[in-house]
Amino acid sequence: MRVLLYLSVRPSGLSTIQEISDAYGISKNHLMKVVQQLGELGWVETVRGRNGGLRLAERSRALTIGEIVRRTEKDFAIVGCFGDRAEGQQGCVIQPQCRLRGVLAAARDAFLAELDRHTVGENANPANELARLLGIASVPIPAAGFVPGREPGPNET
Amino acid sequence: MRVLLYLSVRPSGLSTIQEISDAYGISKNHLMKVVQQLGELGWVETVRGRNGGLRLAERSRALTIGEIVRRTEKDFAIVGCFGDRAEGQQGCVIQPQCRLRGVLAAARDAFLAELDRHTVGENANPANELARLLGIASVPIPAAGFVPGREPGPNET
Repeated sequence: MRVLLYLSVRPSGLSTIQEISDAYGISKNHLMKVVQQLGELGWVETVRGRNGGLRLAERSRALTIGEIVRRTEKDFAIVGCFGDRAEGQQGCVIQPQCRLRGVLAAARDAFLAELDRHTVGENANPANELARLLGIASVPIPAAGFVPGREPGPNET
Repeated sequence: MRVLLYLSVRPSGLSTIQEISDAYGISKNHLMKVVQQLGELGWVETVRGRNGGLRLAERSRALTIGEIVRRTEKDFAIVGCFGDRAEGQQGCVIQPQCRLRGVLAAARDAFLAELDRHTVGENANPANELARLLGIASVPIPAAGFVPGREPGPNET
């Protein structure tokens, strides 16, 4: 999610894993696995080579947070009886009549439904502020030289 | 939750950890920790001694599943920035402007709100069927000898 936000507020060009690692203080090793998965899902485009890097696939701005969580989180089995059971593994004896299971499934669905109400693009705001916090310098300056006034952020004097 | 359901459908008298362990196939060691916590929360009453055991505290039928989950699950920090941070530990650099955090908090709240809509008493139904699946034999027979007709369960011939 943080990689997608980083790439969303980067105005143009390619980013490197090193830059994202530095910006968030996330280990490069971990980020490499994340970026590989984002590439396989088609949400991030990678350009190989010396001047290579990453950029957000255009359609990723419309991705919902719910879709991202569903496709990247491995385990939504909040109780044992939701998961796949290996053959011979004992199930829960009350399962045929258990209402609690339905209650927990409804709660999981409510969690994801709330996440479905929001997109990557919407969360990549305020873009200038996020870019500043991430140390992304090349925020485009409007041609007329006009920069909209804003309150100083907490780390500014 | 399963201990509370067991005690809810047990018509009278005291249950032992051994009985509950046998009924669900849950280890006695694990159950002892669970029951201790349920006792400390006042949801279960324990009677010590040779003929001792457990019973549901009367008010526990009105407990919501949400309240149980809130009081017994240790960690609702679904992302690192929700938790308490040890001094000196690095936070997330975009936190001052991050909207995703609010989205994830709203999803967590939607999960718990759904669980708040249901009580232990409501989930301890159908009581006779649950008691039968749990091997609880002493289901009370109405004085007039009338047993309401019902469809045979899946494990009955």
